[in-house]
Parts: sequence; C-alpha cells; structure tokens
Amino acid sequence: MSILVVGSVALDTVETPFNRVEEVLGGAASFFSTAASLYSQVNLVAVVGSDFPQEYLDFLRSRPINLDGLQILDGPTFRWVGRYHMDMNARDTLDTQLGVYAGFHPVLPAGYLDSELLFLANIQPELQMEVLQAAPRTRLTVLDTMELWIMPAREQLTEVMKRVDVLLLSEEEVRQFTGKASILKGVRDLFALGLKYVIVKQGSYGALLFGVDGTYFSAPTYPLEEVSDPTGAGDSFAGGLSEAGGCPWQSDRLFRLRGL
Amino acid sequence: MSILVVGSVALDTVETPFNRVEEVLGGAASFFSTAASLYSQVNLVAVVGSDFPQEYLDFLRSRPINLDGLQILDGPTFRWVGRYHMDMNARDTLDTQLGVYAGFHPVLPAGYLDSELLFLANIQPELQMEVLQAAPRTRLTVLDTMELWIMPAREQLTEVMKRVDVLLLSEEEVRQFTGKASILKGVRDLFALGLKYVIVKQGSYGALLFGVDGTYFSAPTYPLEEVSDPTGAGDSFAGGLSEAGGCPWQSDRLFRLRGL
Repeated sequence: MSILVVGSVALDTVETPFNRVEEVLGGAASFFSTAASLYSQVNLVAVVGSDFPQEYLDFLRSRPINLDGLQILDGPTFRWVGRYHMDMNARDTLDTQLGVYAGFHPVLPAGYLDSELLFLANIQPELQMEVLQAAPRTRLTVLDTMELWIMPAREQLTEVMKRVDVLLLSEEEVRQFTGKASILKGVRDLFALGLKYVIVKQGSYGALLFGVDGTYFSAPTYPLEEVSDPTGAGDSFAGGLSEAGGCPWQSDRLFRLRGL
Repeated sequence: MSILVVGSVALDTVETPFNRVEEVLGGAASFFSTAASLYSQVNLVAVVGSDFPQEYLDFLRSRPINLDGLQILDGPTFRWVGRYHMDMNARDTLDTQLGVYAGFHPVLPAGYLDSELLFLANIQPELQMEVLQAAPRTRLTVLDTMELWIMPAREQLTEVMKRVDVLLLSEEEVRQFTGKASILKGVRDLFALGLKYVIVKQGSYGALLFGVDGTYFSAPTYPLEEVSDPTGAGDSFAGGLSEAGGCPWQSDRLFRLRGL
C-alpha cells in the first residue's frame, strides 16, 4: 500500500521545561512520513530550502519514503519555534516562518499516481487544496490542520474540509473552529460539512473517533514515564493510522452512539 | 453480593457556570451507594444531622441500600460548597463543614458482617480506619479520598492506604500525595505502600488502572453533550466498579506494562 502526503518539512526550535533543541528535523509531513513508513510506502510532497541539512535528507531517504516530490528551492526552509508549558499538553508557538512554502506549488511525479491513501498534513489550506485536486482518486482522504490556519484561513480550510473523508483536530481546535464548548456539538457541526469521520486528539489522554453513522471509538495512550518533546506526536499518530489501511477502528472495540 | 460502604452523606451547594443548586443530596457515600445499588446490595455506614431532609432518606430507602448503619444525631449535617470553572474538570471547594461527622464513631450492625466488598469512600481517614478495623474480612477493600485529607491528614491516610487493596485518586491527587509530576512514577510510589491496584481518575477523559503486577487498563468515558453538575462523578464511577464484583478489569482489553 502507498500513501501520498503533503505537508511541512521544517526546522524546529523547541523549548520544554527540561530541554532546548535548535533547528532539528521537524514539520508535520516529516513526522507523519517517519511513522507511516513503518507500515507503508510513503510518497512525500514538500519543499525545503537550500539551507536544509543533508543529514535530514539522508534520514528520510533511509526509510521507504519516496522523495521524488520533494523540491529543493533557493531560500530558507520552513521554521517553527515553540515552547511547552510545565504540563506538556500545552504549548505556545513563538514564531513561524513559511520560507520557501510561501510561493510553493507542488508537482506530483508520475510514480505517485497509484497512491491508495491521501494525507493532507498541516500546511497552508491553499496548498492542501492544490494537492487534493491534482491527486488521483484515492480510497480515503485524511486532513490535519492547526491553530495557525483556523482563523486566518478559515474559508479556504472549510473548502478543503468539504472534500475529504476524515478530519483530525485537537479538542482546542474543535472549539476554535466551531465555537462550541461541547466537543459532541462541535463534531456535529463538522459532520454538516460532509465529513465521514472526525478524530479528536486529546494529547496525553488519547484520541476519540466519531463517525457520521454514530461510530464512536476511544483510543487510549501508552503511559510514558518521561516525555522529552511532544512535538509531532499528533502527526506520528496520524502516520500510525495507516497501519490498517486507514481504518484501524474497524475493530470489536467500536460501538455506536445513539442520536449523534 | 453486598458492599459495605462508609463515607459522607451530605448537603451540597454547587455553582457551575450555568446553574446553582443549594443543599441538595450529596456526599461520597450517597453517590457511591446510588450507583452500586444498581448491581448489588449496599450496607451504608454514615451519619446525618437532625436537619437532614426526610425526602433524601426516602430516596436512599427506595433502593437496595440498607440504612441500619446510618445514625441520625443532633447537630448539623455535613455540608460542602463548591464552584466549577468553565472547564467542568476543575473546581474550587469554597467551604466544608463536617458537622456531626466531627465526633462520629460508626457502629456496624450485625447484618453488615457478611459484606463481601468494603468501600472506604471519601471521609476523615481516622473514620475510614475505624471501619476497616471493625469490618469483617472482605474479599476486596477499596479506598477513595480527596485533596481535603491529603495534606492535613497525610499520616493517618497513609496508614489506611497500607491496609487496602485498591486506591482511587485523581491525577492531581496522585501528584499532590507523591510529589511526582509523572503519574507512572507516582503510582510506583503508591505500590511501595502495599497497594495491589491504583485507579487514576482523569475526569472527563476516563480512568486508568495500574496493577502492581504490571496490569494496565484504560477506561474511556461515554461522551456527553451537556454536563450540568459533575459532583460525585468519581464516587458514582467507584459504585459502578462493583458490577463485576470489584474486578471489571478482568477483561480482554487488559494488557501488561513492561517494567512497571
């Protein structure tokens, strides 16, 4: 099976109460691809600047990740700077520099056209839409986004939401986008856009899957003693979804909510 | 099956961002007994004042709850006043008046001595210890407590913990009692007291069960659209534990953590 993914490949500077790292490999598409490549062939669409370290390219290349769709352009790589609170479930974005992503237009190599799944990782909604329109008819399309796009690019983001099967959002993002305090009410608003499933990420508490048909599935987390850096946890989780061909929730733990 | 429970029967005044109620039936033992009585015979040990409304006695009596161990003494009933934040997972205790609980010594009626389970609901640890020592040899003893006792009665509370099988605490209470930010490390400290299981309550996110043998079980919650008052949710959850004779975690969803 192969998965087409578009999203950010970035250099992250991350501060936690316990540590600080500078310009390490980051970006939603990097985390997603690394996790998904444990199970599937990944076809990556992204862009980096001429300043992107060779060692990170080598890391991605060492896995079943096809980089034919990764452009290397003159200019700076996408950079993100963030700081985590004592409770590692909360963080502040201190800086975001789109760099070469600002004027980027993806080109899908011929070898990507037989991809069975499409994952639109966090990036500008306009760019997600371009890939959605250029992509082959995949079996399932999954969309992720973040705070950065919910208010400033709400209209474009909504258009993308209307055209995908599954949406991943954090609890806070559900509240931000829908204006509803109740997650259940917010999810119902999202279904009105045409989505089939909404996955609500709850940080260290796990994730909930809601289906428009009443499906409800709760995925717990594996308890960790030490967390050194939660960046990309949600993207890696999305990568793991590919294990069962995008449908890990077809299990006997699933039940249906009445009246959803 | 029958369950012996000691804990508070109280009058609660509760303020949420949406509502306020005054002097309604509350107290850990009331919530526990109501939930547990759906499955089992409950033998209640508690005390109320002469001001306790007859309608609340009638409510408890209408269920399979034995009130032979409920004393009615001259003086005021236990009263609790609390206020919930916008996020109903957090609350402030504004006032606690022990009333007739201050000098209360329980007497166990003969009919209580064949109880198979013992639940020490939230109340002064000295009182929990008295019942633990007077109680028959039950198959399983379970202990709950709250913030109110963790610091001011730490020593007595620790003595009770050393003599029970299962402890229920919220995440915040695990951190308060053990001083560990990591729940996993805190739970390990609690096992050092001799506990067999620790259940960590996570409010609307569910609960985790840890066993000294490495057992790990995650119980999700049923998603609710409207929450009008979360008071007693943890006590009602404890009451529901009785469904499987105190061992609902003997299921195929259980797995073991390595190196716990």
